[in-house]
Amino acid sequence: MIVDIKSPTPSDLDIAQAARLRPIRDIMTEIGLTEDDVDYYGKYKAKVHLDVLQRFKDRPDAKYIDVTAITPTPLGEGKTTTTCGLSESLTYLGKTVFTCIRQPSQGPTFGIKGGAAGGGYSQIVPMEDFNLHLTGDIHAVSAAHNLLAAAVDARIMHEDSMSDEKLAKALCPAGTFAPWMYARLNKLGIKAEKPADLSPEDRRRFFRLDIDPYAITLNRIVDISDRAIRNVIIGLGTKDDGRPRQTGYDISVASEVMAILALATDLKDLRARIGRIVIGTDVNRNPVTAEDLGVAGAMTVLMKDALMPNLMQTLSGGPAFVHAGPFANIAHGNSSIVADQLALKLASGGYVVTESGFGADCGMEKFMDIKCRASGLVPNCVVIVATVRALKMHGGGPKVVAGVPLPQAYKEENIELLEKGTGNLASHIRSAKKFGVPVVVAG
Amino acid sequence: MIVDIKSPTPSDLDIAQAARLRPIRDIMTEIGLTEDDVDYYGKYKAKVHLDVLQRFKDRPDAKYIDVTAITPTPLGEGKTTTTCGLSESLTYLGKTVFTCIRQPSQGPTFGIKGGAAGGGYSQIVPMEDFNLHLTGDIHAVSAAHNLLAAAVDARIMHEDSMSDEKLAKALCPAGTFAPWMYARLNKLGIKAEKPADLSPEDRRRFFRLDIDPYAITLNRIVDISDRAIRNVIIGLGTKDDGRPRQTGYDISVASEVMAILALATDLKDLRARIGRIVIGTDVNRNPVTAEDLGVAGAMTVLMKDALMPNLMQTLSGGPAFVHAGPFANIAHGNSSIVADQLALKLASGGYVVTESGFGADCGMEKFMDIKCRASGLVPNCVVIVATVRALKMHGGGPKVVAGVPLPQAYKEENIELLEKGTGNLASHIRSAKKFGVPVVVAG
Amino acid sequence: MIVDIKSPTPSDLDIAQAARLRPIRDIMTEIGLTEDDVDYYGKYKAKVHLDVLQRFKDRPDAKYIDVTAITPTPLGEGKTTTTCGLSESLTYLGKTVFTCIRQPSQGPTFGIKGGAAGGGYSQIVPMEDFNLHLTGDIHAVSAAHNLLAAAVDARIMHEDSMSDEKLAKALCPAGTFAPWMYARLNKLGIKAEKPADLSPEDRRRFFRLDIDPYAITLNRIVDISDRAIRNVIIGLGTKDDGRPRQTGYDISVASEVMAILALATDLKDLRARIGRIVIGTDVNRNPVTAEDLGVAGAMTVLMKDALMPNLMQTLSGGPAFVHAGPFANIAHGNSSIVADQLALKLASGGYVVTESGFGADCGMEKFMDIKCRASGLVPNCVVIVATVRALKMHGGGPKVVAGVPLPQAYKEENIELLEKGTGNLASHIRSAKKFGVPVVVAG
Amino acid sequence: MIVDIKSPTPSDLDIAQAARLRPIRDIMTEIGLTEDDVDYYGKYKAKVHLDVLQRFKDRPDAKYIDVTAITPTPLGEGKTTTTCGLSESLTYLGKTVFTCIRQPSQGPTFGIKGGAAGGGYSQIVPMEDFNLHLTGDIHAVSAAHNLLAAAVDARIMHEDSMSDEKLAKALCPAGTFAPWMYARLNKLGIKAEKPADLSPEDRRRFFRLDIDPYAITLNRIVDISDRAIRNVIIGLGTKDDGRPRQTGYDISVASEVMAILALATDLKDLRARIGRIVIGTDVNRNPVTAEDLGVAGAMTVLMKDALMPNLMQTLSGGPAFVHAGPFANIAHGNSSIVADQLALKLASGGYVVTESGFGADCGMEKFMDIKCRASGLVPNCVVIVATVRALKMHGGGPKVVAGVPLPQAYKEENIELLEKGTGNLASHIRSAKKFGVPVVVAG
Repeated sequence: MIVDIKSPTPSDLDIAQAARLRPIRDIMTEIGLTEDDVDYYGKYKAKVHLDVLQRFKDRPDAKYIDVTAITPTPLGEGKTTTTCGLSESLTYLGKTVFTCIRQPSQGPTFGIKGGAAGGGYSQIVPMEDFNLHLTGDIHAVSAAHNLLAAAVDARIMHEDSMSDEKLAKALCPAGTFAPWMYARLNKLGIKAEKPADLSPEDRRRFFRLDIDPYAITLNRIVDISDRAIRNVIIGLGTKDDGRPRQTGYDISVASEVMAILALATDLKDLRARIGRIVIGTDVNRNPVTAEDLGVAGAMTVLMKDALMPNLMQTLSGGPAFVHAGPFANIAHGNSSIVADQLALKLASGGYVVTESGFGADCGMEKFMDIKCRASGLVPNCVVIVATVRALKMHGGGPKVVAGVPLPQAYKEENIELLEKGTGNLASHIRSAKKFGVPVVVAG
Repeated sequence: MIVDIKSPTPSDLDIAQAARLRPIRDIMTEIGLTEDDVDYYGKYKAKVHLDVLQRFKDRPDAKYIDVTAITPTPLGEGKTTTTCGLSESLTYLGKTVFTCIRQPSQGPTFGIKGGAAGGGYSQIVPMEDFNLHLTGDIHAVSAAHNLLAAAVDARIMHEDSMSDEKLAKALCPAGTFAPWMYARLNKLGIKAEKPADLSPEDRRRFFRLDIDPYAITLNRIVDISDRAIRNVIIGLGTKDDGRPRQTGYDISVASEVMAILALATDLKDLRARIGRIVIGTDVNRNPVTAEDLGVAGAMTVLMKDALMPNLMQTLSGGPAFVHAGPFANIAHGNSSIVADQLALKLASGGYVVTESGFGADCGMEKFMDIKCRASGLVPNCVVIVATVRALKMHGGGPKVVAGVPLPQAYKEENIELLEKGTGNLASHIRSAKKFGVPVVVAG
Repeated sequence: MIVDIKSPTPSDLDIAQAARLRPIRDIMTEIGLTEDDVDYYGKYKAKVHLDVLQRFKDRPDAKYIDVTAITPTPLGEGKTTTTCGLSESLTYLGKTVFTCIRQPSQGPTFGIKGGAAGGGYSQIVPMEDFNLHLTGDIHAVSAAHNLLAAAVDARIMHEDSMSDEKLAKALCPAGTFAPWMYARLNKLGIKAEKPADLSPEDRRRFFRLDIDPYAITLNRIVDISDRAIRNVIIGLGTKDDGRPRQTGYDISVASEVMAILALATDLKDLRARIGRIVIGTDVNRNPVTAEDLGVAGAMTVLMKDALMPNLMQTLSGGPAFVHAGPFANIAHGNSSIVADQLALKLASGGYVVTESGFGADCGMEKFMDIKCRASGLVPNCVVIVATVRALKMHGGGPKVVAGVPLPQAYKEENIELLEKGTGNLASHIRSAKKFGVPVVVAG
Repeated sequence: MIVDIKSPTPSDLDIAQAARLRPIRDIMTEIGLTEDDVDYYGKYKAKVHLDVLQRFKDRPDAKYIDVTAITPTPLGEGKTTTTCGLSESLTYLGKTVFTCIRQPSQGPTFGIKGGAAGGGYSQIVPMEDFNLHLTGDIHAVSAAHNLLAAAVDARIMHEDSMSDEKLAKALCPAGTFAPWMYARLNKLGIKAEKPADLSPEDRRRFFRLDIDPYAITLNRIVDISDRAIRNVIIGLGTKDDGRPRQTGYDISVASEVMAILALATDLKDLRARIGRIVIGTDVNRNPVTAEDLGVAGAMTVLMKDALMPNLMQTLSGGPAFVHAGPFANIAHGNSSIVADQLALKLASGGYVVTESGFGADCGMEKFMDIKCRASGLVPNCVVIVATVRALKMHGGGPKVVAGVPLPQAYKEENIELLEKGTGNLASHIRSAKKFGVPVVVAG
C-alpha cells in the first residue's frame, strides 16, 4: 500500500492526495514499454503510441473482464470503484492486471455530482488530472466538433451570398480540387479534373451543398454544465454573421466525435469515420457529411494526439488506461477500443478489467453490440455490480436526491426491500447470459 | 544547421517538416534545468516549473530585447520571423539566447491567414504543435472563462427562482461559508460566522448578487473562427434554462483570462487577478466579480498548469518559450511575464528576444506601459521591423487582400512609394525613443 | 329579385356587385326600428342599440333554426350559402325572417381561400364590407386584446425594475386606489383604504403580480395571415424594452376577447367577462387576470361599440345580423348571443336562421353546450348541410387541395362513394338528436 | 354655447361630456352637403365623399390659416386648443369657419400623456370617438401596412422553398399575368404575354424578387404603446414559418401608409403612392416595392374608405375634419390634403384653420415644403402659439416631467425667464416669414 493516512475514516480526496504516486516512467517500464513508445504529459501521465500494438501483435491476449451494473440509481452503484477494486485484488493475488476506464466529462466536476475517479482505496490517480484536462482529449473533441459546426454555418452563409463562380473560386483558390473534393465528385457521379471542366449544372451541384437550415442535427458542444446555451439562436447581427437559426449546445462527451474516438482502431479509421459524420440533410433530404464540407482532414489533425490512450495508475500503482468518454445514455458509453487492445497485449497472461457505462441493459449491451463488434474482441467474463442500497431502491425504497441526506431505509437492514429489488439484478443477469458470457455478481 | 532540404526554394512547411528536432530533454539540460524542473508534453515540448525562478533569482538578468514593427499591413511585416532570425543570428555569434513569443490563436489556423510560427529558416518547431493544441493552455483559458460565463447565467436563473432561504442553502449546503464567501462578507461589511447569523436584510444582500442582465460585459469564448455565434440569444427553452438574453462569443485569445495568464507572476497572483474579473454590474451599478460568483478558485484550478511556460525550440535548436497569446487589438498583445522572467535568468549573460504584437504604437507601447510595469523589467533595446513592401504600402501603394496575388508595385523597385512610407517608420522610432530605450530598425 | 345579370353563369362576385342594394334605412324601418335605435355605418350597414331588446322584451320569440353541417372538407359544404338560401326561401314563402351569421376573419380573404359571404344568389351584401373592415369589430377586438398583451409585458418590465415604493406610486399616482384595484384588494384579503395604509408585506403582495414569464398563455393577435410572426422572441433591445421571451401571434378571431364578444349579453357582462380573462399565472401558480392588470376597463371602452350587432342584408334584401366571429376549432365558433336575441324579437312570429361553425360535432355541439347555455335560448330545429361532393369525400374520395382543380370523382356520378359517405351524415344526425331537437338535412 | 356645466372649474372631460352635441346631419346640411355626399358613422361622425370636391370646384377657396407653435415642451403649447379656439372665435364673429386637425394615435391615449382632443372649451367632440377608433382609419392603415409586411416574409419563404416553376404557378395560378405583374414586366424590360413565354432566365428575374433579408426597412406596426415588440425576432418555428430575422414594430401613425393617406389627392393617387412604397432592397441593392410584391391593390382596397375625411364638430358645434395622423418627428406631421381641399370649398368665403404638428421649424416647414407642394395650396396666414409657460421653459426654466407637479417657476410671474425664452419665438417667426406668409403670435 502506497497510501499513508492517519485518519480512521479518510475521505476519497484525503486518500487520493495522500497517495504516493509512482512515476509513470516506472509503470511504463514495468509493462514493457520504452521511452520511444510514449509521450509524457508531466510525470504521472503518458500517451502510448499505437504502433506498440503492431510490435506485440503475436502475444496472446489477456483475459478480458467487463464490469457493468444493475439499473443505475442516484446513489451510484460503484462501477468504477468495483473496477478499480477488482484490478487491485487481482494484483494482490499476483496477477498481471490492466484497468481500462472512460475519461469523465468536466461538466459535472464543478457541480453537486462531483468528479468520477472511483472511491475509497479504489481510485485512478492523480485524481485532479483525471477529473480535469487530463491530456486534453476532450478539448480536442470539442475543437474538432465545433470546427465542423462552424463550417456548417459558414457554408450556408457563403452559399447564400456567393454566385456559383465566386463560390468555386473560394473553394478551389488554386483552380484545382482539394483531395477531399474528389470524394464528393465521385459521389455525385461527375467527371472532371479541374473546376473549369465542370458544366454550369455540375458546377452548381458540386459547389453547392444546399444544406437545409431546418434539417441540421448537429449542435455545438462545450464541456461545461451550461444550461443557458442548451437552446440558442445564432447567426444574429449582420449578413456576414450568417443565417439566423435555432440550435443548441450539448455536453462535449455527447459528441459523435467522442463516440468515434472510442471506436476508431487507427488514424486512418478515425479519418474515415470523421468524414462520415452526418450534420443534417440538404434541401432534397440527402445527408450532408463532414467530408462534403471539406473539414474531415482538419478535424482529424486536431484529433491525432487524442487517439493515443492515456496511461495512468490505480491507487495501488497498477497500470490504467483512461481513454474516451462517450455518454452511455446518448452514445455507446464505453472506453476506447485502442486502449483495450493495447491493454490486452500489455497484460498478456493476465487480466484486463474494463468498464461499461450505465446498467447492463444499456452499457453492457452496447459493449457487446457496438464496441466488441467493432473491435472483434470477446470478453471472458461479465461482472455485474449490485449494491444493497441500489437493490433496495429498485425494490421500492424512498426517493433519493443528490445533495440531500440519505433516507433511513438505506442505512438500516431492510430485507423486504432488498428481496423485491433482486428482480432487477436477475433481469440483468439474464441479459448478460444471452451473450453466452459467464456472469459474476459483485455486491 | 539541423535542416536538410534539397529544394532550392523550399516552403515554410517543407523547412519545418524537414527539421531534425532536438529532444526537448537536451535543450532542457543545456539551459541548466533538471527533470524535476519540467513536465514533458511529448518529446518536443515541456512546461517549466515556476520555482526555477526562485532557484536562479540571484543570477543577473540577460539583455532584454523587444521586437516590434511599423504599423501592420495585410502583408505581414515579419515580426516573428525577425524575432527568430535575430535569436538565431545571436546564437551564431556564440551568444546565449532565449526567444519568447506568444502562442497563436487556433482560430485563423484553418482560414486563409494560416498558422503563425514565423517563416523560412526562422520558425518555432514543431510547427504543428505550435499552431494547434500546444500543451492545452488556450483550452484551459476557454474552460475557465466559459465556466465563469456559465456561472453568471446559472446565478441569475437561481436568484430568479429561489427564495432567500433556498438560495442560502444552495450556496452553503453545509451551513458554513465557503472561503471565497468571506471576501464577499467583508466587502459588504457584514459580520457573521455562519449563514444562520445573517439578518434577513443581510441574507438578501449577501446571497443575492442581483446581476443586471443588461449590464453583463462578459461574452463566452471559443478558439475557432465561428462568425455565426458572434451574436446569439441564449437562455431559450424552459425556466430551468435561464433568462433569455442577447450575448455573443469572442475568440478565446480575447479573453481577460488570457490577458491575466500573460500578466500573472505566480499562482497566487493568478488567483487574485481571476477573482477581480468584472463580469458586469448589479442592478445598482456595482461591479460583480468572479470572486462574488464563487468560481475564482475553480477557474484557477483549471489554469494552474497553463501558468507554466512552454519550452520549445527555434529551427536551429535554440530554446524558446511560447506562452500566452492575448490579442494586441483588444488586449495587451504580449507574451507572458513569467516566460520572460524565467528566460532572463536562464539566458543570464546573454540575450532574451521577446516580441510585441502589432505596431510599435500598440504592441510596444503596451509592452512598456502594461507588461513592463507589471513585471518591473526594463528592456535594453527595441527592434522595429520595417519591410520594404510594408513601407511601400504606407507610402500609398495599392490595396493588398489576403489570398489574392500581390500587386506589381510590391514586386519591383519603387523608390517614391518607399520614401513616402518612411514617415510611418520615423513616427514609430520617435514613439520608442520616448521610453528612453535604444532603437534598432530591421528591414 | 334585385339582381340584374346578363351572363348565364355569373360568378359570386358578378352577382354580388350587380345586386341593387336596399338602403339599410329601409330595412331598419321594415323591421320596426327608428333612427334612434341604430348607428349608421355608411348606407348599407348599421349597428343596432342593445336597448331595443328591452323595448321588445314582451314580444314572443321567432322560431330559432340552427344551420350546421357534416364534417367539414376542403370543398366547403356551403353552410353560409344554405343559411342565406334558407332565409331567402322562407322570405319567398312570405315569412318574416332574420339571418344571423358570423363575421369572417380578414386573414384568409387575401389568400387562396378567399372571402366568406356565402355564394351564388345566397350571399350577405355588400360583399366587400362583409369581408373587410365591416364596422371595425375585429379591429376593436385586436386593439383590446393587444392592449392586454402589452400590459402583461409592461408590468413584468416595471416589476423587474421598480422598488415596491416606486411601483406603488406608478400604479396609484394620486395616492388612492383605482376602482379596479379594490377587486384585487378583496381577492388578496387586504384591508386598506389608501396605498399608505398597506403594510410592507401587503404592499408587495398587492402591487406585485409576479407574473411567471414562462406561464403566460396569452399570445398577441393580428387579423392577417402572417406565418412569420407565429413564433417570435419579443423584448429584445434595452432594459426598457422588457424581458426577452418566446411568444407568438394568433389570428384575431382566435382571441378570447372575440369569444367573449359572442357570449356577452350586455355591456356589464362584457366588462365582467373581460376582467376574468386569464393571461397566465404568477410564480406561485395563481391565475393572473385582465382585472389584476387594471386594463379590463380600457379594454371594455375599446369594445363598447363592437357589442352592437351589425345589420346588413341578404342578396334578396332581407335583414341579416353579422356579428362576432370566433373560430370553431379553437373557440366556440358561433355568432353573437345579442344578435340572435335581437333577431328573435325583431322577427317575432317568423324565423331566425343562425349558423354554427364547422361540423355538427363541433359547431352545433358548442352552439348547444356553450352559446344556448349562456343565452338560455332553445332552437326549434337543426339543419344539417350535406353536399354530395362532401359526402363522396367522406366515403373515401380522392384528396382535394385548395387552389387545385377538382378530381374527376367529384364531377361525375359515383353512388358507391356517396353511399359510403352517408355514415358521416348519419352520425351527425344522431348527435343532433341527442339534444332533443328536430333535424332537417339540406343537400 | 351648447355646454351646460355648474362647476366653476370643470375638467376637460367634464366639459366634453356635458356638451350637447349637434347631430352630424345638421352640420352636414349647414355646410351644404346632402345625404348622398356622406356616410354616417353613428350620429356624430360622417365620412364625406371625395366627389364633393368636383361639384364645388368652381367655388373660391376660403382663407387658409395654419396654426403652428414654438419648439414643443412637455407642457404642451396648446396648438389644438388654439386651433379650436381660433375657429370658435371666428365663428363668434359671424364668419364661416372649418377646422382641420389630425387624428391622434390611440397609443398614448392609455398612458400618462392621455388623449389629444384639445382642452377647455376648445375641443373636438365626441372626445371619446376622437381619441379611440373614430371611423377606423388607423385600423385600416395598420391592416394595409401589416398586409405588406406579411407579404415580404411570405415571399422570402416561398422563394426560399420553391423552384422557379412552382413559384411561377403559385403567382400565376391561371397561367396569365395579374395586372400588377405587367408593371414589373415593363420595369424589367421583359416582353411576354403569358408566363409560358418567359425564357428560363427571365422567369427567374421576373418571379424572384430576391429580397435581401438584411436590407428590409419595413417594420410591422401596431397602434398601441407596446415597447416589448420594438425589437423582435420573427420567423421562428418550422420552415413554413419563414426565415428568422430581426425586425421590430413601430406605432401605426409612423407608417408610410399613414403619410400617404395624408398626401393622396384621390383614390388613384393613393393606389399609385402605395405601389411605390419601398420595403427594402433585393440582393443587388435595387429597391423592392409594394407593387413588386403584388399587394398594392389589396392595400388600396383596405384603405378606400379611410381616404374620405371624417366630419366631426368643435365644442361650439362648428364643422371639423379629423383626418390622417402622421407623426411629426418621423413623418410630415400634418392632417390630410383632401380634408383641407374639401374644407376650403365648403367654407368658401370664410376661413379654414388647419394645424401643423410640433414646432414651426418642423411641422410648419413640412406643411410648406411637403403638404402645400403636394396640394398646390398656399396659406394666407401662419399662427404661432407661444404660451408663457413654454417660453419660460425655453428661457431656462426648471425641467418638467409628465405626471409630476409643475415647478413653482411656472406658476408665478418670472419676467426674466420669459424674456430669455422669447428668443425661441423670434426664431420661429423668422422661419415662417421666409415662406412669405404673414405671421400672428397667439399666447
